[in-house]
Amino acid sequence: MSKVLDVIIVGAGSAGLAALREVEKNTANFLIINEGPLGTTCARTGCMPSKALIEAANAFHRRHSFNIFGIRGEDALTIDIPAVLNRVRSLRDFFVSGTLKATNDLGDKHIAGQARLTGPNSLEVNGQHYEAHKIILAPGSSPYIPDDWNLPADRLLTSDNLFEQTDLPGRIAVVGLGAIGLELAQALSRLGIEVHAFGSKPLLGGLSDPKINADLRELLEQEFPVITGEKLSFSASDAGVTISWGDTSLQVDKVLAATGRRPNVKDLGLETLGITLDKRGLPPVNPETLQVADLPLFLTGDANGERALLHEASDEGHIAGINAVTPGGTTFKRRVPLAIVFSDPNIAVVGQAMAKLDASTIVYGSVDYSKQGRARTADRNRGRLTLYADSHNGLLLGAEMCAPAGEHMAHLIALAIEQRLTAHELLRLPFYHPVLEEGLRTALREIVAKVPHGKVSELADCSGLDIPALE
Amino acid sequence: MSKVLDVIIVGAGSAGLAALREVEKNTANFLIINEGPLGTTCARTGCMPSKALIEAANAFHRRHSFNIFGIRGEDALTIDIPAVLNRVRSLRDFFVSGTLKATNDLGDKHIAGQARLTGPNSLEVNGQHYEAHKIILAPGSSPYIPDDWNLPADRLLTSDNLFEQTDLPGRIAVVGLGAIGLELAQALSRLGIEVHAFGSKPLLGGLSDPKINADLRELLEQEFPVITGEKLSFSASDAGVTISWGDTSLQVDKVLAATGRRPNVKDLGLETLGITLDKRGLPPVNPETLQVADLPLFLTGDANGERALLHEASDEGHIAGINAVTPGGTTFKRRVPLAIVFSDPNIAVVGQAMAKLDASTIVYGSVDYSKQGRARTADRNRGRLTLYADSHNGLLLGAEMCAPAGEHMAHLIALAIEQRLTAHELLRLPFYHPVLEEGLRTALREIVAKVPHGKVSELADCSGLDIPALE
Repeated sequence: MSKVLDVIIVGAGSAGLAALREVEKNTANFLIINEGPLGTTCARTGCMPSKALIEAANAFHRRHSFNIFGIRGEDALTIDIPAVLNRVRSLRDFFVSGTLKATNDLGDKHIAGQARLTGPNSLEVNGQHYEAHKIILAPGSSPYIPDDWNLPADRLLTSDNLFEQTDLPGRIAVVGLGAIGLELAQALSRLGIEVHAFGSKPLLGGLSDPKINADLRELLEQEFPVITGEKLSFSASDAGVTISWGDTSLQVDKVLAATGRRPNVKDLGLETLGITLDKRGLPPVNPETLQVADLPLFLTGDANGERALLHEASDEGHIAGINAVTPGGTTFKRRVPLAIVFSDPNIAVVGQAMAKLDASTIVYGSVDYSKQGRARTADRNRGRLTLYADSHNGLLLGAEMCAPAGEHMAHLIALAIEQRLTAHELLRLPFYHPVLEEGLRTALREIVAKVPHGKVSELADCSGLDIPALE
Repeated sequence: MSKVLDVIIVGAGSAGLAALREVEKNTANFLIINEGPLGTTCARTGCMPSKALIEAANAFHRRHSFNIFGIRGEDALTIDIPAVLNRVRSLRDFFVSGTLKATNDLGDKHIAGQARLTGPNSLEVNGQHYEAHKIILAPGSSPYIPDDWNLPADRLLTSDNLFEQTDLPGRIAVVGLGAIGLELAQALSRLGIEVHAFGSKPLLGGLSDPKINADLRELLEQEFPVITGEKLSFSASDAGVTISWGDTSLQVDKVLAATGRRPNVKDLGLETLGITLDKRGLPPVNPETLQVADLPLFLTGDANGERALLHEASDEGHIAGINAVTPGGTTFKRRVPLAIVFSDPNIAVVGQAMAKLDASTIVYGSVDYSKQGRARTADRNRGRLTLYADSHNGLLLGAEMCAPAGEHMAHLIALAIEQRLTAHELLRLPFYHPVLEEGLRTALREIVAKVPHGKVSELADCSGLDIPALE
């Protein structure tokens, strides 16, 4: 039994590596333990390879606008799926190699193996016992597949193995229409695969605003069938997988499970901590310190079951890393909530989702992108954006959208919310012409018109031409 | 001689119509006089038709990324220039029709004709004399063509007639590489036309940062030749136009003059006001009231020779409209400067341009988009963005860029400057992953590292993985 370590980090993903950065600044007496391949979920199976796939799919899909623009010959375009997947893997390998730099030079401070806590200050890995003043847990999450599916491995895709495929079959069912399912369903469909998409609930892609959701669903259904709220059953045969619901059934070649991700805590030994775990097997975690109960232990990233997003995992590792090596336990303000789905149009939820707001105390401002000038010039005039603001003063509280360039406008709105701006105040921004942000201005003006306001700068209130074509 | 009017507005373009909105709220005793076709410069020959052309050109150009993505058959794509131009006109007509709504129902309050001032309170149009308590001048601007060109009309294109063409020849020289010239040169080149682009100065597209400009020029020169700083001479023949400079010459079919726009003030009668005019023939105008000297007269929009941008023209009409109908003369704060060129990558100058800052009191933060993760997935990894901040405290002062999605990031930076944020403070924004805005974060972090700072939120200072691949 060796000396007591200052810190042990379990998991070398996005959260663990962010913690490592802070720990390394303060001590050399640490260990980082990682099970399975190095490289973060983000780089290896998540954000990055999915974006590479989506960009190829969207570039191919754009041919449907070619005739409108005056570009001829789009019928000759074909997609080479193996080449698409090769490029995805090539980019993925590059992004993964970036994440490996952090652990490359750690020598025996890095251990490959599965760690299991034996108490709040100790754990075992590869049959060895280690003690530490602080332990940071960042074991990540894994795709969850419902127990009753019983599909053979060669019929089942998840984000873990999708990007390993060298080709894709002609018919894929995507089950689960959160961020991952929605992004992949649309990308696969746009790559020419016959996609059927199944969601458990009517609300798609993390939206809570029924009107935005309805617009999104209508757009998606122009591309592929979307079936929600049905109890599905699966049976595999040599010919494929038959999916049945109600009195309908459908045969596909493979099923892509996007039925959520679950924290990797099953074999982590959390039950040895002597504290109550919830139904998911998770202990209580303070989101502003990442501390588990009052223990010298931190649970960060996807594994704590909250904010399973890269930028939040990175913040959580950062916070836990600081708190593991400095006394006192600093409380950190978390960022304005921001979730983006890289569908087309982009889905985004910024600040407080509509469902979390009291409808009696808010006003709405909305823009229909089907009529928006710049969007029309680009043949991208689809979608809607709605802002929610305090009905007393127009303070911006949140937004939901499925809108062209939504990923960019979501950042602009997040900054406005972070700065606690009212709709009036955000109208002081120069809105260039012609830009998609002028649609956001339309929504802001609707709020201003509904909110009582006293003396304001008339220029801030400048309402321009009020001509939809020029918006 | 009829009664004295409250207000006469000269010009029914973007500035004039914005003034009209304010005037109409307060009085029915007004006239609006417009020379030439109705419909704004923006809708008829400017922002909107150029964007329609650019979107078609960029969609066609995207085929060069197809092979990389795994899309085959791009060689079969052709461009149908007459169809492209037809669509441009169709959209243009729609946008123009939007602007006509404002004047449609004015009856004899709207006069078609050329107005000429006879003094600060009076003017003549169509041989009639009118007097008004206040006059708002918004006569707009027109393309300027150097006097010594002497090109026949059928060899000369300007933004006034480009979109009227039913087809385009194979070889076009674009002379002038400001916003208009750059946008059109790239669009025409991307539509398959052999373009030679000529600029008077080495700095292109309104940039003042030599490093951004160098990156931009390198990117442009991969698409078409860019020649700057040469004295050009032109001679037309049946075979085309020969352009000569130094000991080089070149034959093209047409020359597109993008050599700037000049205020339409030549026949406006400004010399009757009894005040000193500058070399351009323009009187002094207060930018915060739009008043001309101390006269009951306002000069707004492109015609005053400042901020020839739609959103500024709209603000100026708005300000003059309010000041023409309310006593006292209200001073308005103008917006954060924002100029965007819709080239690819987008050029933008936000806040204070580099050339306007004292290099000894600022620090720079920059991002090279050739290495940026999301840009790589989209095969749009080109360009650069640089932020300028106060070296004492990191206060954001300005930015220049040629960057993918630059038009969107320019708005985000404009809001940060408007809110007087430091680089530290803007880092509190959630930067989603993977987005192009993460490149902006890279630039912000460079500034933070160069600026002395005291106690700041560590989360605000959160520096994540610091892995370029994940940026």
